[in-house]
Amino acid sequence: MVTPVRSGLPRAGRPAETPLPAAPVASQEEIRRQNLGAVLRHVHVHGPTSRAELTARLGLNRSTIGTLAADLAAAGLVTEEAEAPTGARRAGRPSLVVSPRSGRVHTYALSIEADRLRAARIGLGGRILDLRETRRPPGMPVLDAVAPLAGLVRAMADAVDAGALVIGGAVAVADTSRDAEGRIRIGATDETLGDVLGAELAGPRFATGDLADVAALAEHVRGVAAGVDDLVYLHGDLGVSAGIITGGRLVAGHRGRGGKVGHMVVNPQGPRCGCGSRGCWETEVGEGALLRRAGRDPGDRAAVLEVLRSAVGGEPAARAAVREVADWLGFGVANLVNVVNPDLVVFGGSLREVYAAGAGTVRRRLDAMALPASREHVQLRAAALGRNAALVGAAELAFERLLADPLNAGVAG
Amino acid sequence: MVTPVRSGLPRAGRPAETPLPAAPVASQEEIRRQNLGAVLRHVHVHGPTSRAELTARLGLNRSTIGTLAADLAAAGLVTEEAEAPTGARRAGRPSLVVSPRSGRVHTYALSIEADRLRAARIGLGGRILDLRETRRPPGMPVLDAVAPLAGLVRAMADAVDAGALVIGGAVAVADTSRDAEGRIRIGATDETLGDVLGAELAGPRFATGDLADVAALAEHVRGVAAGVDDLVYLHGDLGVSAGIITGGRLVAGHRGRGGKVGHMVVNPQGPRCGCGSRGCWETEVGEGALLRRAGRDPGDRAAVLEVLRSAVGGEPAARAAVREVADWLGFGVANLVNVVNPDLVVFGGSLREVYAAGAGTVRRRLDAMALPASREHVQLRAAALGRNAALVGAAELAFERLLADPLNAGVAG
Repeated sequence: MVTPVRSGLPRAGRPAETPLPAAPVASQEEIRRQNLGAVLRHVHVHGPTSRAELTARLGLNRSTIGTLAADLAAAGLVTEEAEAPTGARRAGRPSLVVSPRSGRVHTYALSIEADRLRAARIGLGGRILDLRETRRPPGMPVLDAVAPLAGLVRAMADAVDAGALVIGGAVAVADTSRDAEGRIRIGATDETLGDVLGAELAGPRFATGDLADVAALAEHVRGVAAGVDDLVYLHGDLGVSAGIITGGRLVAGHRGRGGKVGHMVVNPQGPRCGCGSRGCWETEVGEGALLRRAGRDPGDRAAVLEVLRSAVGGEPAARAAVREVADWLGFGVANLVNVVNPDLVVFGGSLREVYAAGAGTVRRRLDAMALPASREHVQLRAAALGRNAALVGAAELAFERLLADPLNAGVAG
Repeated sequence: MVTPVRSGLPRAGRPAETPLPAAPVASQEEIRRQNLGAVLRHVHVHGPTSRAELTARLGLNRSTIGTLAADLAAAGLVTEEAEAPTGARRAGRPSLVVSPRSGRVHTYALSIEADRLRAARIGLGGRILDLRETRRPPGMPVLDAVAPLAGLVRAMADAVDAGALVIGGAVAVADTSRDAEGRIRIGATDETLGDVLGAELAGPRFATGDLADVAALAEHVRGVAAGVDDLVYLHGDLGVSAGIITGGRLVAGHRGRGGKVGHMVVNPQGPRCGCGSRGCWETEVGEGALLRRAGRDPGDRAAVLEVLRSAVGGEPAARAAVREVADWLGFGVANLVNVVNPDLVVFGGSLREVYAAGAGTVRRRLDAMALPASREHVQLRAAALGRNAALVGAAELAFERLLADPLNAGVAG
């Protein structure tokens, strides 16, 4: 009665994508655009790749790959060069190697962080070509960051060759800012930011993304989470926020404001949080909590690394402070692991060093609290891209429209 | 320097999909398959639809829609009939109406719930054609449910016409089961379940999904969450679990075991949970917690509705119990809203009635705890599909392969 079917069933326990109407694919032009994007995306993510390997990886035939690569080269997006012959090479015509033109095709990636503003010129393939930064005074509203950021961009642009191809820009914004009284302002990011930046630079609007989200994206595309489709990236600065990727996609939530994990309440009897609630995760694991527990001024960010170094060096108060923070860190990670069940949790920002100093404690708390089926497979790792993750991720946002439509996305300038 | 581009930027604050290499779309056959799927999916989700409306909705031209509909009709998946003329009709040839053949094309959808086993025959378009159930004794292992479920399927199959088209089957499994001592077993679902069910019925393996996940899917496709792409569906029975959909996709997590929100710790000083941890959310909001607070036997599931009715009727102990459970319900919802930032939270299973009885308390706690940017837009709603959500959702899983490849997915039987 129930007889075999040709197409596969969804994987056990993993429902297929939600079946909602999808826009049908219709035209040859659309196919060509997708294929051009696939080739360009491959070399953008994986670096120089031979035509032969592209043929194998993308499931297209050799002549199609040849045409696509030639079109991308003619548009100035890639180069094609013969591989240097090596002793081990097979006989026959060598396959051309397709490389992204990182020096020519670039974007401007910006970040508005807790206490600084950063700007980078990043080439196709994720190469950082130029990098500048300036201080962000405490309490500086996001929109006030536009003028100094635009200044950094202009300074970088002055050094760029006339033939360069600029792919718009993008800006990453830390989710936490504080007003003059130290109260947390969240979700207060002005939604006109991208437009205002574009107008200031006489160009199109900048893409915008949450700092933890785009840092997660960067670690996913070219960091410690490359190849992992289910991950939680935790970013620590004044507070704690997350970029959550499931099934290879960011969990953006309403208006991109998902991942405010720092305000998950873990301790109903805990200290009052700047958001108005009590016992939020970041009151137990934020930089202020570490400093307070180590007997330091909770507002003295510069002392965070000092406390972490003292802990590694064996200083008892610092060790106790790190242990307590790491225990609460594992507590929140356990909750997230139960809810999201990722394969990987990545610690970034200042949580990178907290994790490095207290990894055993984090893992012990996770193992004591999370369900076996959720925690047994999960890996914990320090972020790979360090301070540059948000900029690299913002560049990915900006490059996305080039990869979606390679021959219609950029303008020389 | 930064000049206009043709393609759009990602929406403010909402990063584009993670840019990883996608398999390029290449063949005409693939396009036809996608278009056939789009037409069939439309009538499956939205019901009978005229060719004219399909043309408008799917962005294909009229003759293409005509060919696709005719092919689907020839395969016995849809009917095409002339619209009954009405006074308000425009002049000209009436557009044919395409309808899913719900009576002919069907699947077997099963659910293994906390205390019962259910089986339904569900037609294309989500129509329940037949429905049977039997008791699941406490502690019955999942694989022991195969024989009785197969018996229910055989009984339904006996009543089916010879010309029917069966689209495999799918089974939803509650994430929580308890062993003879009442300890919680989670993630213990035997992964061979789908194979064993298929073998027992001499057919292909059954798709499997977590009960809360597929119930979320059902509410998303044809329930209270239709048209909402970011939602958290909460399912209450012995415990609490969630189906989380973001950007229109289920958050499956590793092996589909995401959404174990019942074991998010909300009260570190709270009662010991059957999972071995302490203060898990379900120890505060599960059926046992409600019964305990109302002074009833925590194991007496039959009394749950009684307590809820007494509370609505004004009985003080029941009202206090509901208020306390609703307050903790709002607590966990606030955490999930901060983490995921959905547009909608749906209460299903026994939480449907808990929410109905304590909606004001849930909302007050949410508003006191979650960040304004996360909670201001979020809607709270009781589930629409009631007890049948899991079966309807399992059918969606099973139909997915038909919708992916309409002419190669089913076999008459």
